[in-house]
This record gives sequence, C-alpha cells and structure tokens, in this order.
Amino acid sequence: MIKKIAVLTTGGDAPGMNPAIRSVVRYGINQRLEVMGVFRGWWGLINEELKPLSHRSVSGIIGQGGTILKTARCPEFRTAEGQSRAAETVRKYNIDGLIVIGGNGSFAAAHEFYKKYNIPCLGIAASIDNDINGIDYTIGTDTAVNTALDAIDKIRDTATSMERIFVVEVMGRESGFIALTVALAGGCEEVIIPEEKMDLNLVCHDIVHGNLVGKMSWIIVVAEGAGKADDIARQITEMTGLETRTVVLGHVQRGGRPTAVSRDLALNFGKIAVDCLIAGKADIAIGLTSGKIAEVAFSVAIQKKELKIENLYKLIKVLT
Amino acid sequence: MIKKIAVLTTGGDAPGMNPAIRSVVRYGINQRLEVMGVFRGWWGLINEELKPLSHRSVSGIIGQGGTILKTARCPEFRTAEGQSRAAETVRKYNIDGLIVIGGNGSFAAAHEFYKKYNIPCLGIAASIDNDINGIDYTIGTDTAVNTALDAIDKIRDTATSMERIFVVEVMGRESGFIALTVALAGGCEEVIIPEEKMDLNLVCHDIVHGNLVGKMSWIIVVAEGAGKADDIARQITEMTGLETRTVVLGHVQRGGRPTAVSRDLALNFGKIAVDCLIAGKADIAIGLTSGKIAEVAFSVAIQKKELKIENLYKLIKVLT
Amino acid sequence: MIKKIAVLTTGGDAPGMNPAIRSVVRYGINQRLEVMGVFRGWWGLINEELKPLSHRSVSGIIGQGGTILKTARCPEFRTAEGQSRAAETVRKYNIDGLIVIGGNGSFAAAHEFYKKYNIPCLGIAASIDNDINGIDYTIGTDTAVNTALDAIDKIRDTATSMERIFVVEVMGRESGFIALTVALAGGCEEVIIPEEKMDLNLVCHDIVHGNLVGKMSWIIVVAEGAGKADDIARQITEMTGLETRTVVLGHVQRGGRPTAVSRDLALNFGKIAVDCLIAGKADIAIGLTSGKIAEVAFSVAIQKKELKIENLYKLIKVLT
Amino acid sequence: MIKKIAVLTTGGDAPGMNPAIRSVVRYGINQRLEVMGVFRGWWGLINEELKPLSHRSVSGIIGQGGTILKTARCPEFRTAEGQSRAAETVRKYNIDGLIVIGGNGSFAAAHEFYKKYNIPCLGIAASIDNDINGIDYTIGTDTAVNTALDAIDKIRDTATSMERIFVVEVMGRESGFIALTVALAGGCEEVIIPEEKMDLNLVCHDIVHGNLVGKMSWIIVVAEGAGKADDIARQITEMTGLETRTVVLGHVQRGGRPTAVSRDLALNFGKIAVDCLIAGKADIAIGLTSGKIAEVAFSVAIQKKELKIENLYKLIKVLT
Repeated sequence: MIKKIAVLTTGGDAPGMNPAIRSVVRYGINQRLEVMGVFRGWWGLINEELKPLSHRSVSGIIGQGGTILKTARCPEFRTAEGQSRAAETVRKYNIDGLIVIGGNGSFAAAHEFYKKYNIPCLGIAASIDNDINGIDYTIGTDTAVNTALDAIDKIRDTATSMERIFVVEVMGRESGFIALTVALAGGCEEVIIPEEKMDLNLVCHDIVHGNLVGKMSWIIVVAEGAGKADDIARQITEMTGLETRTVVLGHVQRGGRPTAVSRDLALNFGKIAVDCLIAGKADIAIGLTSGKIAEVAFSVAIQKKELKIENLYKLIKVLT
Repeated sequence: MIKKIAVLTTGGDAPGMNPAIRSVVRYGINQRLEVMGVFRGWWGLINEELKPLSHRSVSGIIGQGGTILKTARCPEFRTAEGQSRAAETVRKYNIDGLIVIGGNGSFAAAHEFYKKYNIPCLGIAASIDNDINGIDYTIGTDTAVNTALDAIDKIRDTATSMERIFVVEVMGRESGFIALTVALAGGCEEVIIPEEKMDLNLVCHDIVHGNLVGKMSWIIVVAEGAGKADDIARQITEMTGLETRTVVLGHVQRGGRPTAVSRDLALNFGKIAVDCLIAGKADIAIGLTSGKIAEVAFSVAIQKKELKIENLYKLIKVLT
Repeated sequence: MIKKIAVLTTGGDAPGMNPAIRSVVRYGINQRLEVMGVFRGWWGLINEELKPLSHRSVSGIIGQGGTILKTARCPEFRTAEGQSRAAETVRKYNIDGLIVIGGNGSFAAAHEFYKKYNIPCLGIAASIDNDINGIDYTIGTDTAVNTALDAIDKIRDTATSMERIFVVEVMGRESGFIALTVALAGGCEEVIIPEEKMDLNLVCHDIVHGNLVGKMSWIIVVAEGAGKADDIARQITEMTGLETRTVVLGHVQRGGRPTAVSRDLALNFGKIAVDCLIAGKADIAIGLTSGKIAEVAFSVAIQKKELKIENLYKLIKVLT
Repeated sequence: MIKKIAVLTTGGDAPGMNPAIRSVVRYGINQRLEVMGVFRGWWGLINEELKPLSHRSVSGIIGQGGTILKTARCPEFRTAEGQSRAAETVRKYNIDGLIVIGGNGSFAAAHEFYKKYNIPCLGIAASIDNDINGIDYTIGTDTAVNTALDAIDKIRDTATSMERIFVVEVMGRESGFIALTVALAGGCEEVIIPEEKMDLNLVCHDIVHGNLVGKMSWIIVVAEGAGKADDIARQITEMTGLETRTVVLGHVQRGGRPTAVSRDLALNFGKIAVDCLIAGKADIAIGLTSGKIAEVAFSVAIQKKELKIENLYKLIKVLT
C-alpha cells in the first residue's frame, strides 16, 4: 500500500501541465496519499528541491499556462551520478511513486530510472508537438494548435489585403502534427512537414499558376523540423520573383490559458495516473488513444511515432 | 454514377457549419460533382431556394461562425405536403444526393425523407450539445465548450473577489455534456444536469460547510434542461441565507470563430460525406467515434444518447 | 513627510484593479513608503484585516481580472460607529494616506471619511460603467466593452444564420456608456439607454419595415438601467409578431484579463495616486480626462455624469 | 455642393480599416453622396480599378481585420506620370473628394496630390505604429497592442516556467509606441526603442544582479526599429552567459478582429471625414487628439512625431 507520491514536470512546458498537477495533488490527497511537488524536473530530485503540496496549494492554477513546479533541462540526470542522487532523494523522502508530466525525452529518462532503481514511475503525456507514440492526443497540443490558428487567421487578413505570400513556421521539430492540423483548419494553401519530402518547385509552380488565374495570396505552413521559414521564403522569391514574407510563431505557441480539451485531458490523466500507482502499475504513460484514456508502456511511447498524413495532406490541397 | 448533390444546414446553427459547407463544396467539385446550396434548411427545398455553389463562393468562410446557407425551423417539412414539395425540388434539379448538416431532429427528418422518397440523404453531425447517439464528438461542441469556459473563467474573477455564489446556466436541453465538460475544466464546485437527479439540500449543505472552513466562492453549473438558474439560485439563497447570483450564457455559446477541433472535424466530415454519397451510401450520419471518423446509421443516431457521467461527475467533486 | 499608505478596492470589481494595486505597491515601495493592503474594502479597515504588501506579493497579477485584495459591500461603513472604527485602524497602524480603488459610491464614502477624520484619501477611478463625473475613462471599462463586443459578434452569427431578432442586455445601471459603445462597434441596429427615452413603437416600426425590404436580423442593445431584456423582447414580439430572443450578459462583463488600455491606465493611475499623497494632496480621484491623466476633486467626481450621446446615437442609426 | 466621393486604403493594412470604410460608405450615402471604392490604394486610381459601393456592400465587415478594398505599395504614384493618370481617373469619374485611409506615407502622397491637382483629399489616421504627428491615437494601434500583449502574456508562461530570458520584437520601425505600451502592460523588465539610446551593458548588469537575488525570468521588448531580437539576444548571451530566446511577433500584429477602440475610432473618423469633405475642407487628417476627434493639417501630420517617453520608460523600470 503506497503512502506518498511525488510529481514533477520536465521538458518544454505545455499548457495543461498546471491542471494535471492540480489533479494529481487533489485526487492523490482524496485517496489519502501524501503528494510532494518536485521543482524544476529531475534537477529538483537531484538537488532535493521538493515540498509537500496541499489541496489549497493548487488553487487557481487550472486556467494558467506553464507549470507552477517549473521545468528545466537536466543533463546531470543522464549521468549515473545524477540518477543515483535522485534515487537517494526518493528513498530519503519515502516516495512510493513518481508521476512525470512531460514528453518523449522525459519518459525515456523515467523508463531508465525505473529499470535501474525499481522506483515506480508513471508518465502523463504532455507535449505540444503531439509526438508520443501510441497516444493520439497529449496535454497542450490543442492549446498550441488554437494559438497557431489564431495567428494564421490574423496573418490571413494581411495576406488577403496586401495580396502577399506568407511562410509561417510553427512548432514541430520531428512531427508535422501542428503544421498539418493548423494548415487544414486555417485553409492554408501549402504545408511542409518533416515526414514528407517537399518539392518546392511544385509549390512555386502552383503559386505562379495561381497568380495567373487571380489567386494572389498564399499561406504556406512549415513545421520547424522541415525547414526555416526564411530559407523557404527566399527560395520562393528566387523561383517566382514574388515578394514573400515570413512569420516564426515560436514560443508563443507554448503558453496561454489551456483550452477545454487541454484541461479536461490533464485532469483525467492526473486522476488515472494516481490510480495506476495505487494499483501497483509502473513504467507506463497515460494518454488519449482512440478517444479513450489509455495506458501505454514507456517502451512503446518512446518509439518514433508515425504520423498518418496522406489523407490529411491531400485534403488540404483539395480544399484550397 | 452521381452528378449533382445538394447541401443544407438545419436546426440551431453550430460553429463549424461553414467549414463543413466549404469542404462539401470544394471536395465535391474536385470529385467532378455539381454542388447546390439550399437556403434555410428544409424550407429552401420546399420553396425552391437553392443555387449552385462555386469553389470561390465558399472563400473566407472557414473561420466564421453561423452558416452562410442560413438555417430555419420548418414545421411544414413535417407534413406530407411539405415533404412532397421538397422531393419535387430534388427531382426537378436532378439532385442525386443530399447532405444534411445538423443534429438529431435534422437526421430524423432526413431519415424519414429517405425512406419515403428514396432520396439518398447523408448527415453531418453538427450540434453544440453533442447529443447524437453513437457519435462521441460533433461539429460545434468544442467551440461552445470553450466559449462557456471563457465565460466561467471571467465569472470566477468576480466570484473570488466578491466571495459570491454563482449559478451559471449553460446550453444542453437534454444533455449535460457541455455542463460536465465545462464544470470540470473550469474547476467548478457543482454541476446540475438532466441525466442525474440532484439533491439541492446536499449542495446547500456543502456550501454552508464550506463557508465555515473559509471557502467563500462557488460556481455551480447547470444545464438548461436540468433547471433554471434563477430558480436554483433562489432556492440556494432560501436554504443558506447567502446571496447568490446568476448568469445565463445563452446564445453566446452558439456563435464565434470555430476552434481548430470544430474546423478540422467539419472539414473531414464534409469530405467523407461526399465520399459516402459517391459510394452509393445513404441514411447515415458522419461523426467522430472512438477517435475516428465513423458512419452511423440514422436509425441509431436518432436514438437517445446515454451520457456516461458517473466518473466525470465524481472527478469534479473530488477536484474542488 | 508620509511614511506609510494603505490601499483597498471597493464596490464591484473591475478588470484592472490588480495592476492598479501592483502599481501602488511597487511605486510606493520605490518611493520609500510602506504599503499596507486592506482586505474586502472598508470592511477590512473596520475589522482590522490588513497586512503589509511586498514587491513580490504583487507578482503575476498584472494580467488577472478581479482583485487580490477582494472587495465587499459594507453597510457598516455608512454608520458613524463603522467609520469611527475604521479611523481607529488607520491611526493604530500609522497610515498616512489611503488609496481607494473604486467607483462613485466608493469616492462618496472616501470623501465623507476624509472630511470627518481628516485622513487623506485618494481615489483611483475603477468602474466598468465609466460613470464617474469629470473623468472620460476609468479602469475596467475598456475590458468590459470588449467582452460585451465579443459576445455580440458571436450572437450576430446566430442572428444572421437564423434571421432572428436579439435583445442583448449589457451592464450600465445609470449609464448607457457600454451600451452605446458596444452598439456602435458591433454594428447593432438599435440601442436603449437610461439617458434617453425610447419609443419602442418606432423601433418596431423599423423592424417591420426592415423585414419587408429583406432585413431579417436585428440586435438591440439595452443597458440594464433602461429596461429588462425580457420585457423589451416580449413587447417587440407582441407588436411585430416576430420571435425575439434575449441574452443577458451579466457578470461575464466584470471579469477577464484586463486589456492593454485597462492595464496601462491602472498602472499610471496608481503611480499618480501615490505621487499625490506624497505631495500632500487629498480628496481627489485620478482618471483619464481629455486624453491625459487628471486629478478630479471627489466633490466633482461624485456628481451625476452627463453622457453626451446625441452624436453617437445618431451615428449608430445611420450606420446600420 | 459635392456629389461623389471615393475612398481608398493605402500603406500597411491596420485592423479598423474595414469599419472606417463602412462608415464612409454608409454615412456618405446617408448624406446623399455617391461613394466609390478604389482598389489597391493609389494603384487603383492609376489603373481605374474602382466601383460604386452600396450600403449592403459593406455588410458584415465591421469585425474583420484587413481591408476589403485591399492595399498595395505603389511606386508609380511617386512619378509625375502616375499622379497625372490618377488625377485623370478622378476627373473622369467626377469624384469631388478623396478619403485616404492610411498612415504617414499615405498622407504625404495625398498632400502632394492635393497641392498639384487641387483634388480635395481627406486622411483617416490608420497605422498600427501610432506614429502620426499631432494625433494621439490612430485606427489599428489598440488592436495591435492587444495582440502583442496576448503574445507576451503567453511567453511569460514559458519564461517563468523555464526561468528564461526572452527578447520579443514588436512592430515600430520609427516609433517605440507599441513597445512601450506593451512592455508596461505586460510587466516586462526592459524595453528598447528607437527614440532612446540603449546601454545593453546596463541591461546585462541588471540581469546578472537579478539572477543573484533569484529573479530568473526576463522579458525584454524591442521595437523593430531599435534592433533585431536575434542580435540583442546574442549580445546578452555573450555578456551574461545566460541562454536567451527570441520571438519576432511580426505580421501577426497587423491582423485580427479590431478591438472596440479601433472600431469606434474608425466609425467616428469615417463620419467626420465625410463631414469635412462636405464642408469643403481638404488637406487634413482625422485622428484622436486629447481625447477628442480632431482635424490635423497634412503638413503637420507628416512631420516626425516626438514620443514623450521619459515618464513611461521610468515607470516600466520601477514597476518590475
């Protein structure tokens, strides 16, 4: 029977981490567990920066972006020394289970930590890139997508008024999920993603041909992992002779009030994660799969996710 | 081989109807179909108010709430006379299939129309109440939920600052979906829905007890089908002696720029609906089920939907 | 030379009160003052609920609606007994000046308090109704107006799609400012305000005539002080035979992230209020007048404000 | 007595241009004028791209960013040949007055055009940079500022969670207005503007010192005219050794639904501009000055605007 758990957030922050923390803390306390909050991810475990969280300590955070536990990169946790010190902290504080709110990299680290020290680790899938294998939807993605969509709707106003070509770079180092989703929802003319080789000649041909029949404004969405907006814009200008502007949305996509979807997933994931720890489960991540909350083994979750893009990609082209 | 289809929107408008129209029109044209737009739902079919829609006619509507085809109640379509005139219009214009964007009532009407006149009807699930059986998510729901959540976040500011009790009435005549989803995401203290008998005594007991331990502000979400905000507020004041305010969100929840989810569902549903008509299918509705786009027989879709609420309801209580 | 000041928020909360508090606290500390925060307005002064505020205590509140100092009605402060106890608290804590963030009623109370006990009181104009005499713009108004405008834009989607008449009730018990501003910005067809007698017959005549020439949707904005939306809608239905819907925006208008205007006014007002106290001024309110931050005597500010509406009102009618 | 006027939008688009067009058209028609819309600014005058605008032609645009008349750069209008052709078009269509919605550059061109051809030109101040001399507030500024503020609030989530330094580049080639306004409203730690020489050593000293006392996150706003975000970030990293991220908000600030302020200014400016033409006035721009709608001679408006920044700049530093 477990008595005390700890929760931490690692990797890039994602909107919805705060409601996830709220759920872990309040549901944990409801289940008669003590819940400790670890600050700055693995760093806090190594450096003994943690404290008990009360019901009230998570008041008013449900609608806030970011994470009250803060997050940080921690190269030290990749060393045996760092892991050993982290494990020591876990034992010192009699922590029976660890809930790790984060993405791929966080789960890989948790997986290793579990295997090495047999400390039960549970993951909550939080990543704006939605790039966790075996999981259809993570905390933060919906918020990031809507933020990017807002921006694209705004850019459309200028693109149409000034009859310009825009290349808009969205997040997604290894995944084109945000780019595809936003390009579809924003009625964008073209999308460039890491999963698919792009023939820029073809794009430019479309633009030139479109211009001839009166289509003067274009928005081309590019996932950051598939190229730099500036490079692509320069090439388009070279090939078509048309002025091309760029916008790099960047970190704006990470923040902001979480949407209803991001909050509801976070709150449900948090509850299930605590349930899993109580049930003696470990080494798994919680996410949404096929419309249901699912448990996915860390070993599966950290594999490269294949994005099925063909249909979506075709649809974007047909609808513009 | 079909050559011409028509599309109409019926029932209450939902954010996402416009991108659905855009998808039906542009994908239909891409598939070498003629696409007619019928105005004001069934009324337009009866009164021959329809016209061909071009690729360009649906430009710039992807981010707009409401429906450019307009929608209206049509009691006349419930009469044999009305249906017969509608069928006549379908034949006169050589329409091979009809895409009906709407909810339960719309599908029931389309189902009957199909059975009586053998006119292939396809439904696209659009209803902010998310109350269509066999379908997990409809067009418009996500936008309505986020609109209600925005409002509740704002009300929270005053509830906290003035230490007040608020009863907030959200949409949902027969379904507590919006109420439950919003209450969870908004960190609301209580939710009252049509699916569950509510003991107001218990709620008042909680409030009085909360007051004693310093919890001074409450937001109680009520689905319109489960009671009037004013009645509930009056009863709470009578039982607790505490001032209680009400907000009825009302039609604000119907409008606004569709969210990414509402748009992406709409665009995908529109494409699949056209595919179905081309494949000779009829009498079915398109919606999201288990995370995938699914075809659901009208006869199933129009049954009463059972909302699984127990877990959600418990979680709301535990987390506040 | 003053050494210690206190700040409180009274009356209805307004978005921007928090940045005003932040400014008073941080600028006050910068000027080597001690700053105390009084909780729940005058109530806190009477009941000795106050504490010193540090630079850090106001971190992260600049973008939050409501007020961290809370606010409450306080009938007791209208009694000699209550005022005397409040004055006692001021003396006990050696408070040299009091900054009152609020509206008309708050300033009237502060004015009396100053005259009776010679305690220097400074007002910061915060009222979503924008109804303070001698002041063109108060903290909170711009946010409330934009919230109401968002709602009206959403309602417009349904009004247009379903060709309906809507009566939308906005805040403004004695002032039509929000109603006029929003009706103009929202392209609304009619506005009903306390300052102007309204001939509903004329409105109905316009509606019927409009219907004949194809204008099917109407949004009529009514300030709460000029009538109940439900009453007006019923009368319109009786006179025109047309279905009319209502939306009462209510408390939603009070909350939410303050807009840039509401924040920047708040931050500037706070600074000037502290400067005034330091300069030995009292019995005045800070607000925006003729585009500049101005000092207005409490005795002037608490008079009834005359809203110049004629031009605005005419413009609304001409532009629809 | 004038009978026909024309309206055009030039320069960069600004949110509020559409409501300004709506006002000119509808108020003009109300005053028994014919109103022509010229497309793509001066280019449309040179190339005879214009058409009469009806009351209905401006329906539904009050809440849309951009401009339905489109806008374009037009180097040809700087040549005598281009101006002459434009003047020809004016005469050919019997246009008695021209309303130019735009900024500095547009007014300079209109001023010259008026002097050379005696064609009455009236300006409506529309520029997100708010850089028009003699005018306190232009159409579009308030929307741009709020868009930038939204972004900065989002970035703050990550800055705080990850304890990072961010350099955020906002619009303002020659004016620090947006940068200052947003930095104040966003609680930013530093602002760099074209009007003020910046000592980056001092900024870095503040950062290093802040770090020592536990202040780990910084947002530094830079107006595009005062430096590139990337350059500044690189220098900060070099001087402090701390990782520094950049966000360039770019064209996102140009678009979006105009705020209430942007709409109400636009609607009022449009009306006054028409009134001026009717009254035989010319060679002046309409804007907001000292809280009132004012007429400013083009010759004044096109001078370099001096931004009074000292107080604002100090306040920003004091409040962080």
